[in-house]
Order: sequence, then C-alpha cells, then structure tokens
Amino acid sequence: MAELSRLSLNTITVRDQWSLAQCIEGCVRHGIPGISPWRDKLAQYGLERAVRHIRDAGLRVSGLCRGGMFTLPNAVEENRRAIDEAAALGADCLVMVVGGLVPGSKDLARARDMVAEGLAMILPHARSSGVKLALEPLHPMTCADRSVLSTTAQALDLCDALGPGVGVALDVYHIWWDPEIARSIARAGSRILGFHVCDWLVPTRDTVLDRGMMGDGVIDIRALRAAVEGAGYRGLIEVEVMSDRDWWRRDPDEVLRVMKERFQSAV
Amino acid sequence: MAELSRLSLNTITVRDQWSLAQCIEGCVRHGIPGISPWRDKLAQYGLERAVRHIRDAGLRVSGLCRGGMFTLPNAVEENRRAIDEAAALGADCLVMVVGGLVPGSKDLARARDMVAEGLAMILPHARSSGVKLALEPLHPMTCADRSVLSTTAQALDLCDALGPGVGVALDVYHIWWDPEIARSIARAGSRILGFHVCDWLVPTRDTVLDRGMMGDGVIDIRALRAAVEGAGYRGLIEVEVMSDRDWWRRDPDEVLRVMKERFQSAV
Repeated sequence: MAELSRLSLNTITVRDQWSLAQCIEGCVRHGIPGISPWRDKLAQYGLERAVRHIRDAGLRVSGLCRGGMFTLPNAVEENRRAIDEAAALGADCLVMVVGGLVPGSKDLARARDMVAEGLAMILPHARSSGVKLALEPLHPMTCADRSVLSTTAQALDLCDALGPGVGVALDVYHIWWDPEIARSIARAGSRILGFHVCDWLVPTRDTVLDRGMMGDGVIDIRALRAAVEGAGYRGLIEVEVMSDRDWWRRDPDEVLRVMKERFQSAV
Repeated sequence: MAELSRLSLNTITVRDQWSLAQCIEGCVRHGIPGISPWRDKLAQYGLERAVRHIRDAGLRVSGLCRGGMFTLPNAVEENRRAIDEAAALGADCLVMVVGGLVPGSKDLARARDMVAEGLAMILPHARSSGVKLALEPLHPMTCADRSVLSTTAQALDLCDALGPGVGVALDVYHIWWDPEIARSIARAGSRILGFHVCDWLVPTRDTVLDRGMMGDGVIDIRALRAAVEGAGYRGLIEVEVMSDRDWWRRDPDEVLRVMKERFQSAV
C-alpha cells in the first residue's frame, strides 16, 4: 500500500473542472502533498502567483507537464520557457513528451533525430537552471502524433547519449505491456525522475482520453511500483488520469477522494 | 512498386460484405493470386468445399487466420483443428494471435507462460502436419485483450525457445513504431512466414477497427517491405484492413480495385 506522503496530483486529472488555484486548494483540503501542473493551467494563473501559492500551501512539485514536441516549429524556444517555469516552481523535473512525426511526413528516423537534436540544444539551459529533463516514453499508439519515443529502453539509450541532467518519467499506462520493462527499470536506476499511475481499461475507447483510475483496469501497478522502488526511486507518485468520459465529468472533490483511496488500495 | 503477383487478399478486408466463396470469385475476377481466409468464413463455407474452390480457382493461400488465444479455455483443442484446416488448405502458415491476459487477471508473466506452453503443446501436431506456425506480434494497445506478444524481438525469442516449425508474421500496422524493428527483421531472416500491410490513420478512432488502406496513413510501408525482403522474404503480401467506419461500408469490388492500385503505388 502506497503512503499518502508519496501522492501527487497531476492537474490534468481534473482538467476541465478546476483552475490551478483550485487544484492547489484541493490538494491542501485533501491532504495531498504533491502537485504536477500543466503549463496551460500555469499560464492562466500566472507563474509568479502560482509559485507563491504553491509555496504558501506547502506543496512539493513533482513535475511540470510538459516540454518536448521537438518535431513542431519553435520547439527550442518553447522548451527554454518551460525550463524557466520548472526552475521557478522548483519542480523535481520537467516532463518531456518528445513529439510525433513531422506533420505530413512518414520519416520516423528523421523525427527521432529531431528529438535528439532538440534535447541536445536545450540541455545546457536545463543544466544551468538546475532543471532535470524527464524523458517520458509514451505508448506506441501515440507514435504518429505525440511521441516517437516509445519504450523505456529507447529513452535510456537517449539518456546515455545526452549525458547528465536527463532521466526518465515512467507512467504505468505507457510501459506496462513492455516485455523488456523489468530489465529497463533496473537499468534506469537513479535516472528515474518521475513515476505516474492510472490504469488501462478494457475496452479502451480512445487512444488518449480513456484512462482509468487505479484499480479499474488491468495494470499490475503494485508490481511496477515495486520495480521502480527496487531501482531506487523514492520520489512522489503522480496520479494522471485523462478521462473525458468519466472522471472529467465528476465533481473534483469526489475525484480526489477516490484517487486517495485507490492510491492506498491499488498502488 | 509491389508486383501484383505478390498480392493476397486477407478476407477480413471485406468482412461484412462477402462470403468466402464471393472472396474467391472476387480474387479471380480482379486477378489477385493469393487469399488468406479467416476461420469463421471458412466454417460457414465448409472446409472441403473451400479447399476445392480455392484449388480450382488457382489461388495460393498465404495464411489461415487464425490460431492462438492460449489464455482462453480449450485453446489447444481449437488450435489442433486450425492446424488441420491450414494443412487441408495448403496454407503457407497458420497465423497465431496468441491471446491477451486471462480474463479477470493482471498477471502478464503468467499469460506469457501460458502462450509458450500452449505453443509447445500444439507444435508437434503442426510439424507432423507440415503447417508452419507464424507468431504475429500485435500492437501493444492490444496487450490486455488480444496479444501479450507485443514486439518482433519477443516473438523471435519465443521462436528460439520453441525450435523448428515456428516463425513470425509481420504486419506493418503492429510493428511500424518499434525502435528495434530494423534489427529484429534482420534477425528474423528466413523465419518471416508472412507480411501484412494496411496503414495507420491519424487520428485512430478505434484500437481495433480503424485501420487505413495503404497510402492513407503514416506508415513507411515501402521501407518495411524493403527490410523484410532484405531479410530474404519472397512470399505473398497480404492486405488486411479492418475498418468498420470506411472500407467495410464500401462495395467490395471497389475495395479490391483500390487495394490493387494502392498495392502498386504505396507498397
């Protein structure tokens, strides 16, 4: 059973219902010690106000969502801003969703090169800002339009090539199916910068927005938590549920209550 | 450009519209030299009548779809019947979709063991019947309910463990995203028993039934064909499009016409 002292709310779990200010207050009200904001909510609130509010609330920032998207225009500039925001927030990492194919292209190798090149270009700024970049391998079903980084092994190869300051964010939703996952988690070791949980529903009715709450699907979340902790991870555990058919339609206070229960019973 | 002499119709491409007899006649009418029947259509027609009709039509059978499903009850018995049918048809292989998690279970390791055990149990019958078993790695998004065999490397590890008589069927839809695919195809070599084509649509609106016709999506099909041919594959190339929103609603003669055009322009 996961300790509540490890819990962090990824704000997309209540995307449509709450502003960032409401998310912060919700965490305080429900005794949730961590938060991981998305940049759109952060922009709406204003960085300085958000930093002050989060600090005054005594919350820890497990990550900022998200940098990446290196196959779209202006990625480097945009990522530098994201790094500055992560630094201001004192975030444990900046989560990187690296981007899919260049729109209109079928060239997967080129897209992967663009990701490596983009990361190399922003890494000096991340290092000098004290912000760790957490490469998040995304489920292969997102390869075309969100992430050409599909496996943990592939992410670690990229970490090896880039050097210090880069690690991985592992989300059970994206990695649970991987026949190499036990080996990859062991290999990742201290490079695991974030661990995200939700669940895989059967059937899955949408490739992006049909994630389940922990315990409602088929992922052996406890086994994966044991593996990342076996590799040395001691950080916060983010709950990140994207669910336009279910959880996004519920009262956010109910979502946070259930999330806490499931964190203790299914994580 | 792929030669039409390599083309095979996987009958699910016209699932709702045509019986197996109509598929056979359609192939003859359109000059398509190969066919890959599904077992439900085969059962409706009757095995002996189907064998005679296919032989009289001069068609080659690139594969029988499908064996597998080792995590469901009675799998071994059912697979022995499938082997007998593949033998009667003189099919180049029996395509194996190995099965997902045991319903109600989260134990992925156990499901994978059941697959390996089930294959080992039917392999002697396949060998003595002269039927090659083609393990088909399926896209990771099908891991829960269709196939715990998710990558070509994993399939080849299983081939290594099982010995002669087992190879792989590679479908571009399932493998295109894989960062290891070039290495795995080279490793597969003469164990490539089948090659299937269709396309990955953006967006993909269903995890099973929203495949595109070659050329309508983002897969670099030519590059993958070059890779499997570089590994020595000279067999038929099956077109397998599952599409309840588009191709299954069209006139099958139109589907076959477009399929032939696209086979030459996009494969």
